[in-house]
Amino acid sequence: MFCWFFPLTVTHVLVCSKRVVPRFLDLTDEEVADVWATAKRVGAKIEPHYGASSLTFGIQDGVYAGQTVPHVHVHILPRKAGDFEIMDEVYDELDRKERELKKRLDSEAERKDRDREEMIAEASELRKLF
Amino acid sequence: MFCWFFPLTVTHVLVCSKRVVPRFLDLTDEEVADVWATAKRVGAKIEPHYGASSLTFGIQDGVYAGQTVPHVHVHILPRKAGDFEIMDEVYDELDRKERELKKRLDSEAERKDRDREEMIAEASELRKLF
Repeated sequence: MFCWFFPLTVTHVLVCSKRVVPRFLDLTDEEVADVWATAKRVGAKIEPHYGASSLTFGIQDGVYAGQTVPHVHVHILPRKAGDFEIMDEVYDELDRKERELKKRLDSEAERKDRDREEMIAEASELRKLF
Repeated sequence: MFCWFFPLTVTHVLVCSKRVVPRFLDLTDEEVADVWATAKRVGAKIEPHYGASSLTFGIQDGVYAGQTVPHVHVHILPRKAGDFEIMDEVYDELDRKERELKKRLDSEAERKDRDREEMIAEASELRKLF
């Protein structure tokens, strides 16, 4: 019971709840268990797939935490030595991605075919891991 | 099945797994469900308690994600308007806390009584919420 939700770059995967609710606190314990078991499963696959050895997991839960799309989603980023010059730059990246996600959803009608094709190709590649 | 784990400042709470394992991927699905149901429960209580309206949840899972202590723990930070000048500064703070946690554990023997008393007082205050 999960979906992949707009992986905006290769290596950055979002796992969202099947039921559309804005806040993590809106999920039932069963949904929380499902979302995070899925995030664990996805993390376990993408970490070696991208040659990484660590993972950053995060939820920006609410507007003042940087959430731009009112649908609970877990960010998963495979991490490796030297991937960001300063360790915390990964969070700037995460926040930038959150804003891009909002922009893309706002301009869904104008999305270029190539973007969609790229995402389909990435999703197909990742699907083989499961 | 959880514990509070060195809340280093008021408003910053860590929820850790009862079983000591380094990586999130080392937890069973049952433990994942337990840790995150607890994180949700704690978040739901501390958000209004500290007058916040959002939450940042994060796991630095592995050395290259900034993890300093090899025991799975979820960071929970209540968030409100203007709490950090730049939204992402919260992550600098999170990373600073992770390093302080390491430093404190490394110098456990030298810890001042007052630090411990402060933590006990904070834990007692939070315990009333549950």
